[in-house]
Amino acid sequence: MSKVVAGLRPGGRSARIQEAVHQAVLDLQASMDHAQMTIPLIAKQAGVTPSTIYRRWGCLATLLSDVALAKLQPDSMPQDYGSFQADLTAWFEQYFEEYSSEVGHHLLVDISSNPESDDREQCYELVSQQLQVIIDRAKQRNEPYIEVQLIIEIIISPLIYMILFSKKQLEMDYAHQLLKRLFEDYL
Amino acid sequence: MSKVVAGLRPGGRSARIQEAVHQAVLDLQASMDHAQMTIPLIAKQAGVTPSTIYRRWGCLATLLSDVALAKLQPDSMPQDYGSFQADLTAWFEQYFEEYSSEVGHHLLVDISSNPESDDREQCYELVSQQLQVIIDRAKQRNEPYIEVQLIIEIIISPLIYMILFSKKQLEMDYAHQLLKRLFEDYL
Repeated sequence: MSKVVAGLRPGGRSARIQEAVHQAVLDLQASMDHAQMTIPLIAKQAGVTPSTIYRRWGCLATLLSDVALAKLQPDSMPQDYGSFQADLTAWFEQYFEEYSSEVGHHLLVDISSNPESDDREQCYELVSQQLQVIIDRAKQRNEPYIEVQLIIEIIISPLIYMILFSKKQLEMDYAHQLLKRLFEDYL
Repeated sequence: MSKVVAGLRPGGRSARIQEAVHQAVLDLQASMDHAQMTIPLIAKQAGVTPSTIYRRWGCLATLLSDVALAKLQPDSMPQDYGSFQADLTAWFEQYFEEYSSEVGHHLLVDISSNPESDDREQCYELVSQQLQVIIDRAKQRNEPYIEVQLIIEIIISPLIYMILFSKKQLEMDYAHQLLKRLFEDYL
């Protein structure tokens, strides 16, 4: 017997709960200090019981990480500007703008602070997939290119480190310095 | 009138509270899931009231960050092994061992997740100071050396990124790969 026979739509209800809870987290994040967020507050805002959230996400860290990951899903594939350097530059400029904001910092923290979940690995995979699109395009054009892991180590990692561990207000100029090093030393 | 006249020793009492609360956090971290930690639990373990903790640290994130930073204070200056490369290699091997552990990951998260405090900047400063000792020693020996920021970008940042965002079990071999790149490309 199918579960749908009784007229229940577990997928639909489940999706609606997820949407309401995600939206509640985003609304609360916009209006209160990050450290004050609790599951009962989120439940109240979403119009569900706390136990609904505990049952589904287990703990606050997993929920926040889940919401952050959903926000980090890129809206589109990296655009084609005709060359490897132009594609990677445009992509990294956008990446820089997203993550160097306060919202971006919170997303990074929510994902990195959940050691039990797969979200951290998924975050790494998301970046890798985006970079691979740019690399595959370069291969089709018979251009020289740089491997994913090296791009991550030379431009992504320093940016994320500076966002997480320094209070320096980063300017786009820093992203361009990192790109210059990558292209001059590794292309 | 001095505050000490009445026989009170605010410094002494204050230091004892700090020690008890820090120790309580470390004990709880060893025995329970990170996400389950609350200020009332820590207060109970430390034998103080929750309001003592709220008054002094404001919120859980600041307290955890404070404890993590105290743990990250290096026990000693980087050792002198006779050359810039040997000094930096020995220092980075120890850094790798500390941070690639589960405890190290938690320390990083506790510090990076507290955007309001100065702890993140202090963490950056601590690493910079250690590296500066190694660099100053190289200068005295008239050796070539690499500036702090470049060392942070080429070896520290990729390591921290991989610890925070990938689930790969990192081996010491990875630390040596990063050092090799640093010495071959930037020294």
